Amino acid sequence: MINVAIFGFGVVGSGTAEVLTQNAKLISERVGDDINIKYILDLRDFPDSPFKDKIVHDVDVILNDPEVSICAELMGGSHPAFEFSSAAMKAGKSVVTSNKEVVANFGPELLKIASENNVRYLFEASVGGGIPVIHPIGNCLTANDITEVNGILNGTTNYILTQMINENKDFGTALAEAQEKGYAERDPSADVDGIDTCRKISILSAMAFGKLVPPDKVQTEGIRNVTLRDVANAAKFGASIKLIGKAVRVGDKISACVSPTLVRHSNPLSGIGDVYNGVLVNGNAIGDVMFYGRGAGKLPTASAVVSDIIEIATFLTHPTHNVPVWERLSDDEILPADKLKSRWYLRFDKKPNHCLCMLDAEVIEDSEDCYAVVTGEVSLLEIGVTLSEKFTAMRVL
Amino acid sequence: MINVAIFGFGVVGSGTAEVLTQNAKLISERVGDDINIKYILDLRDFPDSPFKDKIVHDVDVILNDPEVSICAELMGGSHPAFEFSSAAMKAGKSVVTSNKEVVANFGPELLKIASENNVRYLFEASVGGGIPVIHPIGNCLTANDITEVNGILNGTTNYILTQMINENKDFGTALAEAQEKGYAERDPSADVDGIDTCRKISILSAMAFGKLVPPDKVQTEGIRNVTLRDVANAAKFGASIKLIGKAVRVGDKISACVSPTLVRHSNPLSGIGDVYNGVLVNGNAIGDVMFYGRGAGKLPTASAVVSDIIEIATFLTHPTHNVPVWERLSDDEILPADKLKSRWYLRFDKKPNHCLCMLDAEVIEDSEDCYAVVTGEVSLLEIGVTLSEKFTAMRVL
Repeated sequence: MINVAIFGFGVVGSGTAEVLTQNAKLISERVGDDINIKYILDLRDFPDSPFKDKIVHDVDVILNDPEVSICAELMGGSHPAFEFSSAAMKAGKSVVTSNKEVVANFGPELLKIASENNVRYLFEASVGGGIPVIHPIGNCLTANDITEVNGILNGTTNYILTQMINENKDFGTALAEAQEKGYAERDPSADVDGIDTCRKISILSAMAFGKLVPPDKVQTEGIRNVTLRDVANAAKFGASIKLIGKAVRVGDKISACVSPTLVRHSNPLSGIGDVYNGVLVNGNAIGDVMFYGRGAGKLPTASAVVSDIIEIATFLTHPTHNVPVWERLSDDEILPADKLKSRWYLRFDKKPNHCLCMLDAEVIEDSEDCYAVVTGEVSLLEIGVTLSEKFTAMRVL
Repeated sequence: MINVAIFGFGVVGSGTAEVLTQNAKLISERVGDDINIKYILDLRDFPDSPFKDKIVHDVDVILNDPEVSICAELMGGSHPAFEFSSAAMKAGKSVVTSNKEVVANFGPELLKIASENNVRYLFEASVGGGIPVIHPIGNCLTANDITEVNGILNGTTNYILTQMINENKDFGTALAEAQEKGYAERDPSADVDGIDTCRKISILSAMAFGKLVPPDKVQTEGIRNVTLRDVANAAKFGASIKLIGKAVRVGDKISACVSPTLVRHSNPLSGIGDVYNGVLVNGNAIGDVMFYGRGAGKLPTASAVVSDIIEIATFLTHPTHNVPVWERLSDDEILPADKLKSRWYLRFDKKPNHCLCMLDAEVIEDSEDCYAVVTGEVSLLEIGVTLSEKFTAMRVL
């Protein structure tokens, strides 16, 4: 059994406990051992939580327990996150975190402590929520000389900008609605003034170049001054305005900044709307590669935290390396694709003679043409049995 | 020094040699040791290649050389790739590959041989070219119960479909042009009939579910029957036709298929055009996450091959784990963002009194409005010095 302690039982902390519990069986199989939440450190008590018995208020209980091998620091803020993480690593425990502030401010020191104590310090969840970004840059793009990283790194500002672009709402209105929906805080400054993006691009500068641009050296401008006139002008130019964190190497120097940016529609970042994030990395072999998904939220962020925990736990159970086992599926475990339910597009060579309504279909026809979109989920087998006409079918995703 | 042998000196093999050579210095730094190409196995000789002295024709030279610790199998095809890879691993060498055919057909056996011989078998390059897909699913989404994978996995067919959608060219014309440009083979069957996509979704089914749907059990349909009428109908419905490889779990069964699919514009795969690939993964914690980039090509594929080599080499030099070292940049290593050259959007509160042509600017104005797009790359500092008017500036990406 591998024992884990969670530091901070807020949104991400409770999400982490939830994912570890809900997916316990498959996590056990992947790790080769059970992962047990032994402690949850928080100042508060949670009498109604199923995890109430795990709550401790004193970090020393965790630091002094040799059974705990992994700590998940999910408190946020630089202090005492830095002190607690340092102490845990000095006590021989690996640390995973979602805390971008402490990684941007103290990453060099924390990684040094990890190295000196032969433990891990992992922080996939600190950038892009659950989207794999840190690990792929650090492990899958290593053949590349990385030249530039551009990212939409904050879901709140991207939601506000999307509302300005698609719904023609001005900044103030879009912000107020984002606050109503819980996408923006009552004090929205960390998001709309670019502070959150600044910390994340600082971390990405270090991942890309091995050299961290400290957050206070990242020229940072938020989205408060973006007007609907800018949005309309950008559209005329074939671009969408996005808050972009940028880190780039120019000769032997590195530059990092955060600013509203006109992203042309030829750039894959331009199509990323709502609360989604995207990170576009350019390397000299790979060219452009982009990682996309939900950049925040309880379970997506917990996905990254728990995957980091699994990485460390797997190393503890398989000190050399864990080679995956692949079974080949037998026929009775395979669902043939014509039995797989889906929405469908049907093309008829000539107009069908009778109504397609028995298929729950939205039918669109014109004088010579006929096609139908089946909006209910059915299998191709069922359609074939129902229709007598000849048709070509394609799935709708 | 870590010695590598390359099996097959075709496009990917020569790209791999090129990336290992061109990025040798940074790869050395990352690994902590030099990587040396000791042998290149090929039936042919390459008297004009800088690597001509490395060429050998007999695989036993490599298998019997204990100095070789990593083999890169870049030959393609099931045989003798399977036999050579098996023999290399049984001789204690780790193997990396870009060969989707052998991984889809013999992945379960090859991984078992790796495990039995305590070596690695890595195949990031087999799906999505250089885009990190295999490694992120296997290492960064491990907290998730993965439910579904959908991917645009073949650049040739995506290029043809993009030409049909954007340029209204029919399949035959688009194919002929793709062949002219070198995007499609003279015998295009492996691409346009979905065989390549079939192998890749077979591999992804194993990554997602630990269970491989054998390629001959993946219902596979290519794009030959997609008409311009389908493309137009799809557009009316708000969708783009893409060749999608799909693997999904339904209850206790798994289904995998390859077919032309209407991808609605709300789905991030719909925007992926030309030769680009994208893989969309759904997990119960992360929600949707997508990986995007060039799915083929000499250097992008070599990027994945070499990154896999680096992963194994790093493990050889750092048997516990390699903690990255982050330096914090000093002020003189940082290029301030206002000195960073860029294209710019400028918004003026009122029309500037004089021409902006000294900025190499395309100027678009209307009766009340004025903005300019500076199409030449200049720094904000230079703009500020040049213009006397008050303006708001945003970068253009």
